[in-house]
Amino acid sequence: MALDDNDLSVVDAYWRAANYLSVGQIYLMDNPLLRRELVPEDIKPRLLGHWGTTPGLNFCYAHLNRLIKARDLNMMYVMGPGHGGPGAVANAWLEGTYSEVYRDVSRDEAGMRRLFRQFSFPGGIPSHVSAEVPGSIHEGGELGYALTHAFGAALDNPDLVVACVVGDGEAETGPLAASWHSNKFLDPVHDGAVLPILHLNGYKIANPTVLARIPDAELVSLLEGYGYRPILVSGSEPELMHRQMAAALEEAFDEIEQIQDGARRRGDTERPVWPLIVLRSPKGWTGPVEVDGEPVEGTWRSHQVPLSQVRSNEEHRRMLVEWMASYRPEELFDSEGVPVASVRVNAPAGGRRMSANPHANGGLLSRDLVLPDFRGYGLEVAEPGRVVGEATRVLGHWLRDVMHQNPGIFRVMGPDETASNRLSAVLEASDKVWQAQVVESDVHLGPHGRVMEVLSEHLCQGWLEGYLLTGRHGLFNCYEAFVHIVDAMFNQHAKWLKVTRDLSWRRPIPSLNYLLTSHVWRQDHNGFTHQDPGFLDVVMNKPASVVRVYLPPDANTLLSVADHCLRSRDYVNVVVAGKQPGLQYLSEQEAVWHCTRGIGIWEWASTGGGQDPDVVLACAGDVPTLETVAAADLLRQYFPELRVRVVNVVDLMRLLPAGEHPHGLADGEYEALFTTDKPVIFAFHGYPWLIHRLTYRRRGHENLHVRGYKEEGTTTTPFDMVMLNDLDRFHLVMDVIDRLPWLRERAAPVRQRMVDERLAHRAHTREFGQDAESVREWRWPY
Amino acid sequence: MALDDNDLSVVDAYWRAANYLSVGQIYLMDNPLLRRELVPEDIKPRLLGHWGTTPGLNFCYAHLNRLIKARDLNMMYVMGPGHGGPGAVANAWLEGTYSEVYRDVSRDEAGMRRLFRQFSFPGGIPSHVSAEVPGSIHEGGELGYALTHAFGAALDNPDLVVACVVGDGEAETGPLAASWHSNKFLDPVHDGAVLPILHLNGYKIANPTVLARIPDAELVSLLEGYGYRPILVSGSEPELMHRQMAAALEEAFDEIEQIQDGARRRGDTERPVWPLIVLRSPKGWTGPVEVDGEPVEGTWRSHQVPLSQVRSNEEHRRMLVEWMASYRPEELFDSEGVPVASVRVNAPAGGRRMSANPHANGGLLSRDLVLPDFRGYGLEVAEPGRVVGEATRVLGHWLRDVMHQNPGIFRVMGPDETASNRLSAVLEASDKVWQAQVVESDVHLGPHGRVMEVLSEHLCQGWLEGYLLTGRHGLFNCYEAFVHIVDAMFNQHAKWLKVTRDLSWRRPIPSLNYLLTSHVWRQDHNGFTHQDPGFLDVVMNKPASVVRVYLPPDANTLLSVADHCLRSRDYVNVVVAGKQPGLQYLSEQEAVWHCTRGIGIWEWASTGGGQDPDVVLACAGDVPTLETVAAADLLRQYFPELRVRVVNVVDLMRLLPAGEHPHGLADGEYEALFTTDKPVIFAFHGYPWLIHRLTYRRRGHENLHVRGYKEEGTTTTPFDMVMLNDLDRFHLVMDVIDRLPWLRERAAPVRQRMVDERLAHRAHTREFGQDAESVREWRWPY
Repeated sequence: MALDDNDLSVVDAYWRAANYLSVGQIYLMDNPLLRRELVPEDIKPRLLGHWGTTPGLNFCYAHLNRLIKARDLNMMYVMGPGHGGPGAVANAWLEGTYSEVYRDVSRDEAGMRRLFRQFSFPGGIPSHVSAEVPGSIHEGGELGYALTHAFGAALDNPDLVVACVVGDGEAETGPLAASWHSNKFLDPVHDGAVLPILHLNGYKIANPTVLARIPDAELVSLLEGYGYRPILVSGSEPELMHRQMAAALEEAFDEIEQIQDGARRRGDTERPVWPLIVLRSPKGWTGPVEVDGEPVEGTWRSHQVPLSQVRSNEEHRRMLVEWMASYRPEELFDSEGVPVASVRVNAPAGGRRMSANPHANGGLLSRDLVLPDFRGYGLEVAEPGRVVGEATRVLGHWLRDVMHQNPGIFRVMGPDETASNRLSAVLEASDKVWQAQVVESDVHLGPHGRVMEVLSEHLCQGWLEGYLLTGRHGLFNCYEAFVHIVDAMFNQHAKWLKVTRDLSWRRPIPSLNYLLTSHVWRQDHNGFTHQDPGFLDVVMNKPASVVRVYLPPDANTLLSVADHCLRSRDYVNVVVAGKQPGLQYLSEQEAVWHCTRGIGIWEWASTGGGQDPDVVLACAGDVPTLETVAAADLLRQYFPELRVRVVNVVDLMRLLPAGEHPHGLADGEYEALFTTDKPVIFAFHGYPWLIHRLTYRRRGHENLHVRGYKEEGTTTTPFDMVMLNDLDRFHLVMDVIDRLPWLRERAAPVRQRMVDERLAHRAHTREFGQDAESVREWRWPY
Repeated sequence: MALDDNDLSVVDAYWRAANYLSVGQIYLMDNPLLRRELVPEDIKPRLLGHWGTTPGLNFCYAHLNRLIKARDLNMMYVMGPGHGGPGAVANAWLEGTYSEVYRDVSRDEAGMRRLFRQFSFPGGIPSHVSAEVPGSIHEGGELGYALTHAFGAALDNPDLVVACVVGDGEAETGPLAASWHSNKFLDPVHDGAVLPILHLNGYKIANPTVLARIPDAELVSLLEGYGYRPILVSGSEPELMHRQMAAALEEAFDEIEQIQDGARRRGDTERPVWPLIVLRSPKGWTGPVEVDGEPVEGTWRSHQVPLSQVRSNEEHRRMLVEWMASYRPEELFDSEGVPVASVRVNAPAGGRRMSANPHANGGLLSRDLVLPDFRGYGLEVAEPGRVVGEATRVLGHWLRDVMHQNPGIFRVMGPDETASNRLSAVLEASDKVWQAQVVESDVHLGPHGRVMEVLSEHLCQGWLEGYLLTGRHGLFNCYEAFVHIVDAMFNQHAKWLKVTRDLSWRRPIPSLNYLLTSHVWRQDHNGFTHQDPGFLDVVMNKPASVVRVYLPPDANTLLSVADHCLRSRDYVNVVVAGKQPGLQYLSEQEAVWHCTRGIGIWEWASTGGGQDPDVVLACAGDVPTLETVAAADLLRQYFPELRVRVVNVVDLMRLLPAGEHPHGLADGEYEALFTTDKPVIFAFHGYPWLIHRLTYRRRGHENLHVRGYKEEGTTTTPFDMVMLNDLDRFHLVMDVIDRLPWLRERAAPVRQRMVDERLAHRAHTREFGQDAESVREWRWPY
C-alpha cells in the first residue's frame, strides 16, 4: 500500500506531535502548549537530554505504527540510541500507554505539563530509554547491544517482528559490529523477524561516524556481506522522506512475509537474505538550523541540547518558541491538550501499540519451566569423598531433559564451549542452531536448534538478555576467565533489574543464569590467560536484591543449585562449577539439604563431629573443597586429638551480614559456624580478599585467614596450580599449625614434612610433568 | 618475483621444519629426531597444545620470511590464534632467536629435545604465544584483539609492516568485527602498513565458523565493505598453495608499496583500499587425515591434539611417527639436529627476523617522553578550598604540549569523549586522525592526527596496547562506567606485564595510562547506566607489581599524578578525576608534596592542626573530598572543641600493607595517620568495600566506617547523588556523631539539624530541580 496523501498527513502529524513532545520534555517546566508567552521560569534550570537522535527515532516510530495498523503486525521497538529517551516517552504518551501505566501523567494538558517537568528532573524519570519507559527492553545508555537484544527477543516468537534502530555511533562498537551476523542464527520457521534500521545521522558526541563517511557503495557492500539486503532511505525534506520511508517499509515487510512464507509453507531451507533499512537523515532533524552563527541541524552540535541558554538568552528563547511552533501544536492537541483524533489514529490499539506490546514486559507472558525432578539425575554417593564424577556432565543430562520438556522457552548459550564444558547431552534434545552452510561431517548443527554457539560472549549474553527480557528462560555457559568480556553487559542488566524491582507494572522475568566452568583451577592446559575468577568481584558490587553466587562443590549440589536458579526470577545467578573429574561428597538428598542451607558443617570430614573446634577449615568451590577435605584428613592423621571443623559454603551470600543480603546469616548463626575466637582457614575459589570483604563486619574476623587465587599460574599440573597459590592441602595444614600457638612447637616436624611434601611435589612435577598427579587420586579414607 | 622451483623448495622445507617442530612440542619428551624407535616413555604424559591452527600459522610465516628477504622488509607478525603457540616457538627456534634469548635451548638436537619437553610442561613454557615467545606482542589466549594490536603497532612506524593472522574463530568476536574499520584511522604517510591474513580453517573448538560458511561472494562483499581488497588463497595441495600464497603476497606488497608511495610521494589523499589476504586451508593441515575412523584433518577434531592416545595406543603411536616422518626431517636437520642451510636460508638475518624484530620488544626502542614541567600549567591556589577549576581541562593544556613535544611517540585515545572529557586543548597540537570522508563543517579532523576517537572502547584499548607494546606512550581517556567494557582486555594486558617482569630480555615498556573521568558522581545528566566505579575493583585483583590507582582531588594534583604516570613503565596506572568545576585545594608545590606522599593530613581542614584527633575524616576522590572538607567545616562550626583530622588519599595503594604493595604504608605510618582507636569516617569515590579490602589487616580497622557508591543513582542533581548514597556532608557529620558516644547526647540537636538539612535539600531539589544546587557553591571559609 503506497502512502496516500491522507496517510502522509496522519504520519506527519503524529511525527510532529512526537517531536513537539520530545522538545517539550527537554526544555519546559511549564506552559507545555505555549499558550502564553514563554518566560524564563517556564524553562528547566538544567537542560538535559539528547535531541540529536530523537527526531529519527520518532520518524521510525510513526512509520512503523502505520505498518502495524495496515498489516496488523505484532511489533516491538528496540531503540539502540537509548539516549533518545524523550522520543520513547513521547510515543508512549501519544499512544496512551504512558497514562495507563502512570495514572498521574494523564493524556491532557496537565499530564503533558507533568510529562515535561519530570523528564531528567530530580524525582522524575531518567534521560534515557530506561526500564521506566513502557515498551522498552533496552536502555541504550551503554551502546552496542541493541541488535543482540532484538534478535534475542525474536527467538521462538514466530509472530513477532522486532524493529531495531541501530545508531551509527553504536555501529562502531565491537558487540554491534558482530551482531549483524545474528542472522546466521535466526530460524525463519520458529523465530520472529528482526528489521534493523541503521540510522545514519552522521555524528556522535563530537565526531562524525565511520559508517556515515564511507561511500554508499562500500556501505551497501558491507551490509550485503553481513547477509542483508539494504534498502536506502535518504534525505531531509519531510514529505519526500515520508514517501521513501513508507515505500521502504512496505518493501521490507513484503520481503519478510515472503521469507517467512517460504520457510514455513514452501519449505525453503536456504538462509534468507533479510531486509534492512538504512535511514540517512540529519542529526537533530527539524531542530534549529543555526545557533549563534554555528550550524546545528545536521551536525554533532545537535547531539544534546541545540539551544543551551534558553533561560537566560532571549534570542534562544525566541528560537525555542519558533522551533516548537514549527510543529504546529495547535493542529496536534485540542484545547484540553489531548492529542487530536487525526494524530491518535496513527497509533494501533491495545497490545499492538509498541509501547504496550506484552513482549516488552516479558514477565507478563512468561511461563514457568517444566523442570524434571533433578533427583534421579545425580550420582550415587553412598559415602562422601570416594566417588569421582564430572559435575557439568551430570548437569548436562538434566539440562537435556529441561530442553526437551520446554520447547520454545528455554535456550542454552555458549561461546563455542558447550561441548568443551561437557554439557553435550543437551545436544540430544536440540541441535545447535545454524543457518549458514552445513557440510556432511557436521554434527548437531541444524536450522531449528535452541543451543546457540558463537565465538562471542557478547552475542551469547545479548541474545540471552533479549530472550529473558521477553519472558523466556536460559543458561549461559562460559569459561570463567572470559566472562569478564561481558562485565559491562552484566552491569547494565543488573542495573535494569534493580530498577524494575520498583516498578510494579513490570512483571518479574526469569533470572540470568551463568554457569562458569572451565574455571581458574583447571586451566592447567591453557594457562595464565585463562585464569581469572574475578567476575565474582564484579557481581558482588551490584545490589543484594538482584545478585546470587553459588559454588557447588560436586555434581549433586550443582544439580540442586541449577534447579533453584532456573525457578528463580529477577536475579542474576552465578554458578561456578568444574567440568573435570572430581570427588563427590553428597548424595542427592544431602545435596538438597546442604544447598537449602547454603552453608554447613561437614561432620564426616570434621574431627569430633565438628563440635567445639580448635580450628575451622572453611571452603567454597570444588577444588578448594577437595584440598580442604584432604587437609582435614592429614590433620586427623597427624593430630588425632585436634578438633577440626570443616565448613562448606555453597551460597556465598550467606557470609554477608543479614542486613546486607536476604541470604545473609544472622550473626548468631555465623558465629555458631565459624566461632568468634578460633582460627578459620578459608580455602576459596576466587581472589581471597572477596571473603574478607563479605565478612569484615563479623565478630572474629581477625581470626580469618583466606587462601585463594593470587594471580599465579601457567600451563602446569592442577596440583601445581593450587601449590602456586598456597591453596594446597599441605599448605592448609601449615596454615593451621601456624595459627595454633599451643600446637606449633609440637607440630614442627609435621610442618617441616608439609614443606618437604610441597618441594617433593614441585620437583616430581618438573621431572615427570603431568604424570606426577597421583596426589589427586586421593580419596577420603575410612 | 614469482616463486621459482628453488624458492618453492626452500619455503616448503622451512614450512615442513616448522610443522615438524610444532608436532614435536606437542607430543615428545625425548627422541626429538625420531632416530630410534618411538616408545611410550618418549611421549608426554599429558598432550597439550592446539595443532589445528598451527600449520597455517607456519605456512604464513614461511612465506612472509621469503618476502622479508626478497624486499628487505621490516615486519612483525601478530598471531591472532595465539593458541598456536608451538608454531611461534618453532619459528623462533628455526630462526635462531630462541637460542639467543634462551641459551639453554640451543639450536641442535639437545636444544630440540629441551624445546619439545618444555612446551606445556610444568616448569617449562605455556601452550600459547605468551610473553615468553620472542617476536610476539600478542598472546591470543583471549580472542578478539589481534587486529587492534597490529594497527596499534603500525601507528607512527612508517617503515613497519605488521602481518596479522586473524583466525575465523576470532573473527566472530565483537572487538575483531569492529577492528576491520581501523583502516579509517591508519595514516599511509606516517604510519606503517597492516596486512591482515584472514585464516579460514573452518572450525572453532566444536563448531564451524561463520565466515567459512558463507558464500565467497558474501565474504568478499563483507571485506570490501570494510574497505579492503581481498586476495583469495584457497586449497590444500602444498605446491599449489605455495604458488598461490607467494603470488598473493607479491600482489599485496606491490599494492602496499603503491599506496605508500602514492601517499608519501605523489600526495594522494584518498583513503587507500589496503590489500587483505583470505587464506582458506584445512584445519590441522598436513596432520592425520583420519583417526579411529573419524575424519580429523579439515575438521574441528584437529583443534587440539589429533592423536590423543599416543602413549597407550600403539596404532596412534605409529601414526604419529608416520605423521612426523611425512615432513622428512632427515632433509631438514643435520646429524647434530641443526637445521640445514637450505632451511635456514629462508629466514632473514638479525632484526629482520620476525622473532627478533625490535618492535616486538618495544622497550628496546622506547624513548622517554619529553615532558614539559607541569608546574606552570596548574591553577593558582593561594588558599585551599576557595578557587574553582576543571581538573581535566587544566590537564588538557599540559597534554597539548606533551603531544606537541613528542611527535610520533605519544597518542591520546578516547571513545568519542576527548572533548566531552574537556581535554580538547590537545586538539590544538594534533587533529583527530580520520581517513574517511571529511566535510566542510568538520573541525580538528585530519589524516595525520594522533588523537584517536572511535565509539569503541575495545578499539581504543587495543590500539593503545599495540602502541605501548611497541615502545610508545599514550593515554586512554574514558567515561568511568564504560571502561568496564574493556575489563577483560585490561586483565590480559596486566597478565602480560606480570609475565614480562620475569623476562630480563624484555625491556620495560611505557605504562598503560587510564584517565577515568565523567565519573560516577557527575553522571547526573545520563543517570544510572553511566554510574559504575567498579573498574577499580577489577584492577585491584591484579598483582601489586603492575597496578597503580590514583584519585587526585583537584587540578594540580591531577597534573602531578599525570606527570608521574607518563614517566613510568610496565604499570597500569588508573587515574580517576572529574571534569566538572570543582574546588581546588593545593598549590602546585603542595600538590607535588602531597602526591609524592600519596596520602596526608590536611591540616588546614582539620581542627587543632590535625593533632591527637577525636575523629578522622578520610577521603579519596574529588567529590568525596569536597563533601569531607565541607563536613569538617560543619563540625568546626558546631563543635569547635572537637579535634577533627582530615586525611586525603591520592594513591590508593598506600592503604595496603607494606608487604602487599610497594606503595603500602608501614603499619606505624598508617597508624600515625588513622590512629588505632579513633573512629575513621572514610568518604570514598568507589564502592565502599574496596577500602575495607585494602585495610582489613590494619590495627583499628574495626573503627573504620566507609561511605561510597552503593549503586543508588538516577538523573538528578549532583548533590542529590551524594545524598542518595549517604556520602553528603550532612550525613558525614551524622556518622561522626553516631561514632562518638561522649558527643552523642550533646550533639542530638545538631544531628537532627543534619537530618532536616537533608530532607530540606531533597524537597528543594524535587521542587526546583537543578536550580537547587546552591550547596555546591560552598567555599572553605576563613
